[in-house]
Parts: sequence; structure tokens; C-alpha cells
Amino acid sequence: MASKRLVIIGGDAAGMSAAAQAQRTAGAGALDIVVFERTGQTSYAACGLPYLVGGFVAAAERLVARTPAQHRANGIDVRTRHEVVAIDTHAARVTVRALDTGVQTSEPYDALLIATGASGIRPPWPGIDAVGVLQLRTLDDAAAVQARLAAGARRAVVVGAGYIGLEVAEGLLERGLQVTVLERQSAPMGAVLDADMVDDVAAAIRAAGVDLRLGAEVTGFVTRDGQVAAVRTAAGPVDADLVVIGLGVRPNVELARAAGIGIDASGGIRVDDRMRTDTPNVWAAGDCVASRHRVTGSSAVIALGTHANKQGRVAGTNLGGGDAAFGGVLGTAITRFKDLEIACTGLTERAAAAAGRTAFGVITEASSRAHYYPGARPMKIKLVVERGTGRLLGGQIVGHAESGKRIDVLATALWNGMTVGDLAGMDLAYAPPFSPVWDPVLLAAGRAAALV
Amino acid sequence: MASKRLVIIGGDAAGMSAAAQAQRTAGAGALDIVVFERTGQTSYAACGLPYLVGGFVAAAERLVARTPAQHRANGIDVRTRHEVVAIDTHAARVTVRALDTGVQTSEPYDALLIATGASGIRPPWPGIDAVGVLQLRTLDDAAAVQARLAAGARRAVVVGAGYIGLEVAEGLLERGLQVTVLERQSAPMGAVLDADMVDDVAAAIRAAGVDLRLGAEVTGFVTRDGQVAAVRTAAGPVDADLVVIGLGVRPNVELARAAGIGIDASGGIRVDDRMRTDTPNVWAAGDCVASRHRVTGSSAVIALGTHANKQGRVAGTNLGGGDAAFGGVLGTAITRFKDLEIACTGLTERAAAAAGRTAFGVITEASSRAHYYPGARPMKIKLVVERGTGRLLGGQIVGHAESGKRIDVLATALWNGMTVGDLAGMDLAYAPPFSPVWDPVLLAAGRAAALV
Repeated sequence: MASKRLVIIGGDAAGMSAAAQAQRTAGAGALDIVVFERTGQTSYAACGLPYLVGGFVAAAERLVARTPAQHRANGIDVRTRHEVVAIDTHAARVTVRALDTGVQTSEPYDALLIATGASGIRPPWPGIDAVGVLQLRTLDDAAAVQARLAAGARRAVVVGAGYIGLEVAEGLLERGLQVTVLERQSAPMGAVLDADMVDDVAAAIRAAGVDLRLGAEVTGFVTRDGQVAAVRTAAGPVDADLVVIGLGVRPNVELARAAGIGIDASGGIRVDDRMRTDTPNVWAAGDCVASRHRVTGSSAVIALGTHANKQGRVAGTNLGGGDAAFGGVLGTAITRFKDLEIACTGLTERAAAAAGRTAFGVITEASSRAHYYPGARPMKIKLVVERGTGRLLGGQIVGHAESGKRIDVLATALWNGMTVGDLAGMDLAYAPPFSPVWDPVLLAAGRAAALV
Repeated sequence: MASKRLVIIGGDAAGMSAAAQAQRTAGAGALDIVVFERTGQTSYAACGLPYLVGGFVAAAERLVARTPAQHRANGIDVRTRHEVVAIDTHAARVTVRALDTGVQTSEPYDALLIATGASGIRPPWPGIDAVGVLQLRTLDDAAAVQARLAAGARRAVVVGAGYIGLEVAEGLLERGLQVTVLERQSAPMGAVLDADMVDDVAAAIRAAGVDLRLGAEVTGFVTRDGQVAAVRTAAGPVDADLVVIGLGVRPNVELARAAGIGIDASGGIRVDDRMRTDTPNVWAAGDCVASRHRVTGSSAVIALGTHANKQGRVAGTNLGGGDAAFGGVLGTAITRFKDLEIACTGLTERAAAAAGRTAFGVITEASSRAHYYPGARPMKIKLVVERGTGRLLGGQIVGHAESGKRIDVLATALWNGMTVGDLAGMDLAYAPPFSPVWDPVLLAAGRAAALV
């Protein structure tokens, strides 16, 4: 009996999770799974790249969850350095170019999964292609940054003060560089923190020795012999022998769009909760798709390894003959800068207003442990609450050790559509080394409930 | 206009929370609030006592959230060293004895709140009243233990290997004592961990130098000149110049029972979700009441500061003319022994079986951080799941730093009646310093979901 042929475009989190899960669900031999991956690697932890650069992680191999050879040993036909250049949904075939030979072939599929991921945003600034202007999306990018450090880079400029920008800035500080962060907005972490929550973050960045410049408009780069020498800004040039662009990502949807597969208004490939596109036998998962945001109800592109893994698994289960649904996203995220932890879930007060919700925000200062217990540290929790109903719409946490992951309680509450009144009464774990008798989350919810 | 008179019996967490909240809700002067407290203190953190004994907390005053004088300054008439000896619900009066003078008076009430707390269980073992056989429920108890240490105690025996027993054992180790823990059951923490989760706990206790004896039946005490000299057990005596009994507590309901107020089969005062007893104008809150367990649906006595504070606040809101309901309990709890964190919520597999639920348990080993990130530590999560429905019934965590408080995600899931399938898809926070890409809770839920 001929097995069904599943072709997967992209061999990172979503693609390889789907491959493994499809095989597991269908049973050995039931599916013939081929993965085309244009780089030389599969299944690596992109989120670990800043820590590799910073020296927190010793070797790039530590970030590779499974090599192409390991996938092949598991019966998945992974073809690295093979790029899919076209999809013909009528003929159910893809055109594949072997990057090392240039040879193009046409490959049939019974089912196709698009897991093409996302690419770092690189504005068309003059000089952006100069040597030394880098990003940090792949193992190759990390190697390029490390090569630049090895070549003696001393002054780094990071463009963008979001997650990646701050993580890279910390890594470069660790390596002894002089670091400037240029952010166009008036505050760091502006996508996930409201303006009234950022002061501690900006202070921590500056206290660490970073030259943080807010409201900084990059206009291009000064180059010398093809190498970057400075970043041009509206306020003048900033010397740099290494620049890392951390401006977020854009989903890779060109292939899908060219094939006539539906693209959502948010910019990602449109999928249902089974990860099916609008085209028969074509599925998509990971950073390239639009996901349903559970709080707004509308679709959003949120490129994050957790979603890619979950969506890959959902797609794989369904492709293997099982039944699974992706539950949507909340926009939960976390990072740290030095010992400051920063986390968010759901909508900021600003995003709630933009989404047309009548909401208010309330900030509560709390302690990580009983006030009398050694190591108690302060944190701030902001809750965003729908006026009238008391429904939680989002949360933000900025604090020290043991603060950030408390966002998961808010995420779980959001997932279940809880009100702050209900949240305030929950039975969370208490002992002096772990929490005050009113856990910070409960304290915050109680304060918010009194204002509904 | 004469204000209503609210009489509160007991000036610790539940009583004083209720007093403050009633006053806040009713507005200044609307209520005449009198609190009778038989000890000399109010509002102290009993949960901090083991850490006071262990020297983690420098001074007893640090554990007092608010002194009687502070409460009085806030307009609450706190009368310490006054014991209520009888309640006459028909006359709406209580009989109060001033402990320093022996004078008894009769005090009227418009509303009465019983917040008499719980007392440590002290079995009728011969010799239990010897000097040096102590418990750790009050600041006075802590002072007695410290006096015994100051007098040169070297060999301590802790009876009971539950939370309090282990916290005291660690505290005494810190003070340089030789510590033996006697536990009648075959495992430590038996009330909150299933047998398949205790090995790491027992190993940690022993690795710290505690002589942990399981299946140990205490029969009495050897005394010398009225002082304890050894603990008698079925397997022979264990020398001791200090004994701490940590066998849990029993609600103080004698006063209520004698007044004809309804007592629940679980042993606590029966209350509704407003904290009303079955007797008009009589309310109760804290360790002395029976609470609704949200998973079993039946009532349970769970003496914990968090519930006492919440119930006190609910009672106070209602007594002050507002409207609040107590949402029930899950049995969430947490502690640590040295650097091992132990937490639980909901039902153990054993408790689920006892409650007549068809359930299974599944243990997942996971990492606190991305495996490649420095400081990643292992943890075990056990989920107890209803067969067929996949509904989460309980969770247990044993692990190192950053593991225990993850129980709050399970508690929030339980609070909302989630299935493990839904739980596995949640959008929890991920970054390498905080979690693997599949958070331990999601990993555990995913494994469990596959077995439903």
C-alpha cells in the first residue's frame, strides 16, 4: 500500500514538531514525510541566540534540539539546503531548488504544510547591507556576531528596545562591549508594557551601563570600506563597529501568497483552529500564520517558539489522522534584563483602548515573599480590566527574582475569561519563602476588583 | 444614632481582617467593633514561626503585622487577654473573662463573628506535659522553643513529618541541633503527596542530616525532674531535650458547639459562602470553620492563613453592609525543605480514589529553564486526572528553585474546572531563563491528555 506523502516547507519548530507528531499519530510507515529546509540546520532554539552571544550558553550545538541526522534516523526525510521556490496547489506539487547544486525538481504531495517562519525586519536604510550590520534570527547570525566580536568589535549599537534588542544588549555588555540602544518610541518594551510600567526597565538598562536613547530615529549607516562605522540618526551619528537590528519580524508568506493561498489582514497565512489554510490539502503553522487572539477575538501574528511548537503539534496530529485544535494566543511573553524580570499577557491598557474596550489599568506594588522573609523583593503588577464587567483583559509584571513567571497565573485566568473579583478569591500557594499571605496576583486583583 | 455593635472573638488573621474590612465597608463610626483576644497579641504571621526559630527571621516583632495598639489607633476596640467563655445566642450576649483580673462581664452584640482559630493536636501521651515538649502555633510557643535552645538543648525530636514538622526540623538544624523526625506514616508529607512523589523529599531530609524515622509510633515521653529526656516509641526511646509536636491542628469549636451553633461533619463550624453560621447574627471565619472544597464539592477544614484572611475579609465586607462571597478552597499548599520545593493543589490520587473519583496519576520530569540555560534544575510534576472527562483533579510538584510556585497555574486551572487537554494548549510565558519552550506544566498536561 502506497503511503500518503506529507511535504513540509521549513524544518524548524513548527515544521519539525508537525513532522514528528504526524508520524507518531499515523503510526510507522503510514506517512512518507519529506521536509525541505533552506538552511543547514533543523530544530534549533532561536530564543537562545542572545544567550549564546552573551556567553551564557557555551556552544551553538547546545541550542540544537535535534539535528537533521537525528530526524532522518527517526524516519523523517529532511533535506537541508533545499528551498521551495513555488507551490502549485492545482497539481499538488512544489518546486524545490537544491541550493548547493542549483538543480530544481518538482515534488508531489498529498498534504502540504507551510512552516516558513518569519524574517527579521530590515528597513531600507542606506548602508544596511554593510558588513557588521547584523540581526539575530539564526545560528548563522549568531556566528556572524561572534565573528565580529572576535575581530575586535568594541562599540555596538542595537536598534530596537524590544525583547530581542534588550536581550542582545545584555549579551553584548557581558562580552565587554560599549552598548548603545536606539529606540524610536519614547520607551523600551513599548509593545508589551504601558508607559506607566517602563520606568524601572529604562532605569535598569541605564544602570547596567547601556546608553539608551529613546525617540531615536535611525536614518542610515556610515560605512567605511564596506564596513559599518556609525549609525546615522536624526540627532547625529553614533559610532559603531557592530550593529544588531532588533525590530521584530515579518511572516514569510510570499510563497503562499504567490500560490493563491489566503493571507489574513494581519499579514499571516489564514488558518483555522486545525491549522488548515483556505486551500485543500494545504496546512500552515508557526511564525508564518495568523493566530486567533483569545482576548480581542481577532487575528494576530505573534512569532514565538511556544506557538510554533504547539501549532506544529496540532497540525501534525491532524495530518496524522488525529484530531486537535489550536486554542489561540494571549500574547503572553517574558524576558529579563540583568536581574529585572518583565512579563505580560493579554492587552495593555493602550491595546485595550485601540481594540475599543472600555478598560482601566491599576498598578499594585507587592513583595515576592513575606516581607519578613529574607530575599523578599519588590514587584509591580498592572492589571487591565474591563469596566463594568470586571473581566481581566491583560496583565504586566516588572520585578525582580520570582516575579515574572507569576504572569502565568494571569494568563490562565485570561484563558478562562475570569473577572478580577473571581481572581482575587483564588486559592494560590502561600508560605513565607514564596509569597506574602496575599499573593501579589491576589492583591492586585483585589485592588482592581474594588474599582470595577 | 447608636451604631451597631460587632463583637469578634479572636484577634488574629480572620478576626482582624474582618474588623478592618467591616470598618472600611461600613464607613467610619457606623460600626462599634470590639475584638476579644485571649493572648496578648494580634495579627501575627503564624506561618513565619518556624523561620523565626531557624533564625531566618531576626525578631518576633517582624512577624507582627499590626499590634493591638495600632488596631486601637484605627478605631477598633481590641481587648487582649480577654477570653470569651460563653455565647448566648438568644440574648445576643457573650460572657468575657479578663484573664489578668479574673473578672467576668456580659457583653451585648448586634452581630457576632467567631474567629477562634485552631489548636495544635496534642495526643494524650504520658509525659506530654513535661517541660520541653512544645508545639509551634504562637509567638509564645516560639519564645519557649528559643528559651530551650538558649538553655542548651542539643537533641531535638520533631513529631510529624508534615509541613510544620519539616519547617521546624530545618529551623532546628540551622541552629545546630541534632534532629530526629518521627513520622507514623510510611512517608513524609503524606497528606499532600502521593507515595510515588515522596522519594526526593525523604532523600533531601536525610541528606540534610535529619534522622528521619518512618512508621514510628510515639507512645509517650521519658521525663526527668519534670523535663523531657526522651521520646518513647514502639521501636524504643529516642533521647531528646526538646520535642516539637507537629501533628496538625483541630478547629476550636467548643464555644460555638456549646452555644448550639451548627458544626459540620468535617469538624469545623458550618458556614455558607457569606460566612454566616446557621444561627442568626452569628458569623464565623478562619481556621475554625468548614470550607467548601471546590474539587470534591464537600466541606473540609483546612487551616491556612490565606483562607483565614480571605474569609475574614468576606465576613467583614458582609458585616459592613457590602456583599462578598468566599469561593471555596482547593487545598493548595507549598513549603520548602532546604532547597527542595514541595507544592500541591486539589486532590492527590489517593484522595481522589477516597472521594470516589475514577482518576489516574501521571508524573512528568521537566526542567525549570531551557535545558541549555545555566541554572536549569529538574522537577517532577504529578497530575491527577479524571478518567474519561480529562478533568484536572489535582497536582503535586517536587523540585528545586522556580518549581514550587508553578502550582498556582494548576490551582487556577482547577479553579476553572479545566481539562488537561485545554491546559496543555495554554499560552504560558516562555523565555530560556524561565522555562523550556514547553513549560513543565504544559508538558505534564500534554502527557496526561494523551492518557485520558
